[in-house]
Amino acid sequence: MADNRAILGITMGDPAGIGPEISVRALSHKDIYDACRPLIIGDAGVMAKAVGIIDPEIVVRPVANVGEAIFEHGFIDVLDLNNVDKSRLEYGKLSAMAGNAAFEAVKKAIELAVDREIDATVTCPINKEAINMAGHHFSGHTEIYAHLTDTRDYSMMLADGNLRVVHVSTHVALREACDAIKKERVMKVIRLAHDACRMIGIREPKVGVAGLNPHAGENGLFGREELDEIMPAIRQAAAQGIKVEGPIPPDSIFSRAIAGAFDIVVAMYHDQGHIPLKVSGFSWNKESGRWDTGNGVNITLGLPIIRTSVDHGTAFDKAGLGIASDSSLLSAIDYAIKLVRNR
Amino acid sequence: MADNRAILGITMGDPAGIGPEISVRALSHKDIYDACRPLIIGDAGVMAKAVGIIDPEIVVRPVANVGEAIFEHGFIDVLDLNNVDKSRLEYGKLSAMAGNAAFEAVKKAIELAVDREIDATVTCPINKEAINMAGHHFSGHTEIYAHLTDTRDYSMMLADGNLRVVHVSTHVALREACDAIKKERVMKVIRLAHDACRMIGIREPKVGVAGLNPHAGENGLFGREELDEIMPAIRQAAAQGIKVEGPIPPDSIFSRAIAGAFDIVVAMYHDQGHIPLKVSGFSWNKESGRWDTGNGVNITLGLPIIRTSVDHGTAFDKAGLGIASDSSLLSAIDYAIKLVRNR
Repeated sequence: MADNRAILGITMGDPAGIGPEISVRALSHKDIYDACRPLIIGDAGVMAKAVGIIDPEIVVRPVANVGEAIFEHGFIDVLDLNNVDKSRLEYGKLSAMAGNAAFEAVKKAIELAVDREIDATVTCPINKEAINMAGHHFSGHTEIYAHLTDTRDYSMMLADGNLRVVHVSTHVALREACDAIKKERVMKVIRLAHDACRMIGIREPKVGVAGLNPHAGENGLFGREELDEIMPAIRQAAAQGIKVEGPIPPDSIFSRAIAGAFDIVVAMYHDQGHIPLKVSGFSWNKESGRWDTGNGVNITLGLPIIRTSVDHGTAFDKAGLGIASDSSLLSAIDYAIKLVRNR
Repeated sequence: MADNRAILGITMGDPAGIGPEISVRALSHKDIYDACRPLIIGDAGVMAKAVGIIDPEIVVRPVANVGEAIFEHGFIDVLDLNNVDKSRLEYGKLSAMAGNAAFEAVKKAIELAVDREIDATVTCPINKEAINMAGHHFSGHTEIYAHLTDTRDYSMMLADGNLRVVHVSTHVALREACDAIKKERVMKVIRLAHDACRMIGIREPKVGVAGLNPHAGENGLFGREELDEIMPAIRQAAAQGIKVEGPIPPDSIFSRAIAGAFDIVVAMYHDQGHIPLKVSGFSWNKESGRWDTGNGVNITLGLPIIRTSVDHGTAFDKAGLGIASDSSLLSAIDYAIKLVRNR
């Protein structure tokens, strides 16, 4: 019988961050191997060091290609790029070497997915400064994926429990985000949101669309974007058969989505979506001065390949201590499996 | 011995909304009378009807002035404006009569507070459309208070549990909110935030200031307001001895404040502050299609008198059913008592 468990390429992230150790922790759960065939893409020596921190009984298996992997619990198959000088690597330290290793792992994962050698990619955190120090000028994973797969209409989706959010714009100034509220773009993002829900198995998704202005503008009293751009986009999406509602006041749509009123929310700008996700999903530990990681997942929509990711950073302050949680990575793996199943 | 319980003037709000019944429910708690002397300002007949819904054993005592009130549990003193025709009043129905009654109660409360006949005012929800139908052209309580007390530098503070937020701007389009980020204004709001914490008994408040742009602009990469306006305002506030930190990325400051890292947050625009407050404090009941009220309080800072308020609306869909919660009103009463004590 053919093995129908999805092959997931999991990039190890910046080797000086928590990526390697959360990867080991995630793959230490036996049931992960029942649901998928995980392959770490990165440096085998870095992974061996992480194994030493988390669970020395696990055996790292460097492999040269996907065909050599055995996907068995107790072993971690690593597609070994062998690109980190372990004697120079320091946890929590920014370096071009680490940035380059992180970038090359992502590049390799994308190539394998495009070539259909793996079914999906799952990414651990990289450090933007480190990849730029290494000469790779991108502001993050999303932009690397878009560039290397030649994709123009993409969008960032964040999910945490019941709350799923897709953004019309992300890393631009708030004034530019206001300028980006155009009917065509809003329409495309509604479509991406709808399609994303279908891909994770929601048959008839309900899409909620936020307004841009306070109270969604109160009929033009505080801004006209709702009347001129957002409502026409919603009408057009509805005419195409999408179940969509809005524009809804930004300060009420997220509570309603958390309560189950919408399967996904279209947010008009970065913080409109990120604030409710972080307030509902993250918690700040005042004692340690660190974030306690939640279950959030970051998914890039619109690509020709599948990419899910943790929603947290490299957490340099925790790296090498063996205390980082794998909960966000487990959610990212779970979403990747669902996306492969419903493709 | 002099009675040192604060005299609170509580306006009944729009008589067609939930204001009258939540007022009765709040004053049905005996311990309220241990902590303050509450006087309802509104229409005694409307209050008698609300008593009938909530607890018919309570006796409404119409009074003509503050001196006539007895402030005893089991009775509700109502400064009777006698301005509602009960035969025409319908719960949940918008009307100029109801809007006018709500407005007159607020006006009376402000006059009594300015004249020091009462120590503080607490407001129940009014309906903006109704007061405008009655010819009172204001967008809400805050604007009425500012106008009638001739106040220019004021700000809306919202509080819910650990999370307290003051806003640089509120009911303006998001583009205008970007324009409002000016050093002088930000500085004034930091000062209002600091003073507000002192007034509720926090000796050395820690003020957190949010950025305007994603990631607080990343050193000018996504917008310059942080560098040009917000940081100079923070430096000036710090030079004046205020404990203040920022600009902090908008998607992390609220979780940190909820965890206790800041006593109060300065938010740059309406939804930046309202989204986290509603996500953490409100919950949407999908079954009933209604909000379950939380413990939020709305406080107007910068006025010559004290004003606290519920943070929810008239909830016309619940009015007259006896199901509305008084939890937000109890918090507003509690805040008003603290503000009087620390004045």
